[in-house]
Formats: sequence, structure tokens, C-alpha cells
Amino acid sequence: MSTFTDKGTAAPAAYFAGIVWVNMNVKPEEGYNINMGTVTFEPKARTNWHSHTSGQILFVIEGIGYYQEKGKPIQLIQKGDVVKIPKNIVHWHGASHGNLMRHIALVPDYDKDKTEWFQAVTDEDYNIIK
Amino acid sequence: MSTFTDKGTAAPAAYFAGIVWVNMNVKPEEGYNINMGTVTFEPKARTNWHSHTSGQILFVIEGIGYYQEKGKPIQLIQKGDVVKIPKNIVHWHGASHGNLMRHIALVPDYDKDKTEWFQAVTDEDYNIIK
Repeated sequence: MSTFTDKGTAAPAAYFAGIVWVNMNVKPEEGYNINMGTVTFEPKARTNWHSHTSGQILFVIEGIGYYQEKGKPIQLIQKGDVVKIPKNIVHWHGASHGNLMRHIALVPDYDKDKTEWFQAVTDEDYNIIK
Repeated sequence: MSTFTDKGTAAPAAYFAGIVWVNMNVKPEEGYNINMGTVTFEPKARTNWHSHTSGQILFVIEGIGYYQEKGKPIQLIQKGDVVKIPKNIVHWHGASHGNLMRHIALVPDYDKDKTEWFQAVTDEDYNIIK
């Protein structure tokens, strides 16, 4: 058995900004056709803009954060929220200015998924909600 | 956005014993190829014996419970645990004698999955760990 509340290891700097930790709970090679991990964002940390052809589900298990789909306003997300990210929608997620945010993130149909990474979320875009 | 910490509605009595609540967070018809919900077991409540051809993952988000694979000892599971149930393994999960247990449960590759339900877990089998 593993523990999803463990912080894990530093997230790859190429795809994230700020201090981010990733704990992979279910790896595709274990025979389940999903990619699933706990991601912990310290305040102001966030993903780059990205998209998944299979979509993505977030379960916010701690704190307060932000979620934004390209062209839409930033949404506040907090402990208890389920965020359903549609297929192929460019988006980002991360912590709020003053609080850590931790979520479980899951990509279904992983064998068919293509995840694309784009540019970082600029401070100008991030601070719109400040 | 939905809330995974909501208790939901009463679970079907045909497949569960005791007081059990189910909150479906992600339904297959939403376009994600998974079946995912929060299940809350009051003390002594449990599933019947069952199996999934696609396997199942549990994230224990509250309390203390039990998990057993057919022919093996009962395992104690608690908040923070990730339980990876292998494909086609007959098993059950539920609360412990004295504590509620709440988990997120997820079946991947839902379009290919066949879940089979068997007999109830007898008090004799459940009380082995008492």
C-alpha cells in the first residue's frame, strides 16, 4: 500500500513554476490505464499552460488554489472540489497567492492520451485575481 | 464543479451491508472513461464480495476500515492509504468495527470493465479481525 498524502519529489521545472511536489500514486505500468498522482503547490506555484487529449480530473484535498481555462476567468478552487477538465482544453492550475493547494490529478485512458505543454503562466496573468 | 466530500445518497442494498452512502463524482457518460465516486461506510458497514475486470483503486480520505482479498487476511486501511485492487480479484472493503471509513473509489477503463457481485461478507468473516 502507498500513501497519497506523502509530498513526494520536486516536480519537473520545465512544466511548473514555483515550488511544486509530485507523488505518483498509480503509474501506468502497474496495469491500470490511468496516470494518477498527488501534486502539492506552495503559495504562488502553478503548472504551465497545458492540455490533455483524454481530459483530466482534479480532487482538491487541501488548501485554496486557482484553475483557469484559456480565454475564461480564473476560478477559485478549494478543498472538496472536483474539477473536470475537458479534453483538449488549454488550462493551468496552481496554488493561490496566500495558500498552499494540494490535489489528486488523474488522466483517464492514459494509453490514448497526449499531453501537450505550452508557455508558463505569466505573473501578469496570475495576478489578475490578486 | 462538484464536491467529493458530500455524502451523496444511500448505496444499493443489493451490494452493500449496513449504512453506506455513495456520491458519484465522475460518471462514465461525462466522457471520461472511468467510474469514480466517494463511498462512506458507517461503522461495521461493508461491500459484498465483488471483482472488477479492470481493477479498482481506493483513496482512503477519512477514518479506519478493512480490505480483504479472497483467501488472504483482512488488512487495516486508514486515511492516506492508496489501495490497488488487482484485476479479477474477489475482494471486499468497508468500515472497521468502531470507525467510519470514507474512500474515493475508481474503476479505470470503464468501457471494458465487468464488475461481478457475489455473496455478502458474513459476520463470522467480518469479526475475524475484532
